[in-house]
Amino acid sequence: MDQGSCIFCAIVDGEAPASFLHQDELVSAFMDINPVNPGHLLIVPRTHCVGLSDIDPAAAARMFVVAQRLASALRGSEIPCEGINLFYADGAVAGQVVFHAHLHVVPRNRDDGFRLHIDYDSPPPRHELDSAAAAIRAALN
Amino acid sequence: MDQGSCIFCAIVDGEAPASFLHQDELVSAFMDINPVNPGHLLIVPRTHCVGLSDIDPAAAARMFVVAQRLASALRGSEIPCEGINLFYADGAVAGQVVFHAHLHVVPRNRDDGFRLHIDYDSPPPRHELDSAAAAIRAALN
Repeated sequence: MDQGSCIFCAIVDGEAPASFLHQDELVSAFMDINPVNPGHLLIVPRTHCVGLSDIDPAAAARMFVVAQRLASALRGSEIPCEGINLFYADGAVAGQVVFHAHLHVVPRNRDDGFRLHIDYDSPPPRHELDSAAAAIRAALN
Repeated sequence: MDQGSCIFCAIVDGEAPASFLHQDELVSAFMDINPVNPGHLLIVPRTHCVGLSDIDPAAAARMFVVAQRLASALRGSEIPCEGINLFYADGAVAGQVVFHAHLHVVPRNRDDGFRLHIDYDSPPPRHELDSAAAAIRAALN
């Protein structure tokens, strides 16, 4: 996506409306316009980037700390919030719809309409886990 | 949960088996023993804590940066990985099962068995989003 047509860049730049929660030199946080539950919010790096690996590490670190603070605020607010999910989708196959990096903070309540569907296989034996770990470690920069 | 019976503390302390990916003074990363998909891994603060708000902010920041690095390694490894989800469950109602804080890094592929089920309501009007933002901001420390 071209940065010029990026809705999150427009929000960060004050050129599109948003209900803001937090702004600093690295990240912005605002309400999701299509919330899973009331109080669902997003945290984005201010600098345009598409993928998780493209986020400046300082901004990535700040995103998670701001998520922590806003999750605590959600729990302490009048908005129903018995639990919290953080969710990040990197790539279309993972559910990314807006191609500017963003972290979801989702208030959770008993019997709300949000759940994970997982087709678990049987737990693998240790040697398969060790092989997976070795493959990932080998690809670490 | 008592720290003495915490499986993640036992792993961090080398008293329970794990397939490790990363360790530093703040966080450890190892393979999930019940993976959603092959390559599914966890990042935990080394110091025992239950909730998202209980994680030392320096460790929280490190968790996300390590997630970024390990997600890049997953994409560069031989493990099938067309996308990545990060997922964090804070509280039983949000799906937390092990009560030592942990961040999931999940490789995603087309037609894998992992998906979100969301019952969306209609998008709320702006004044409702503004009210939610005001309620959260009011609860920020």
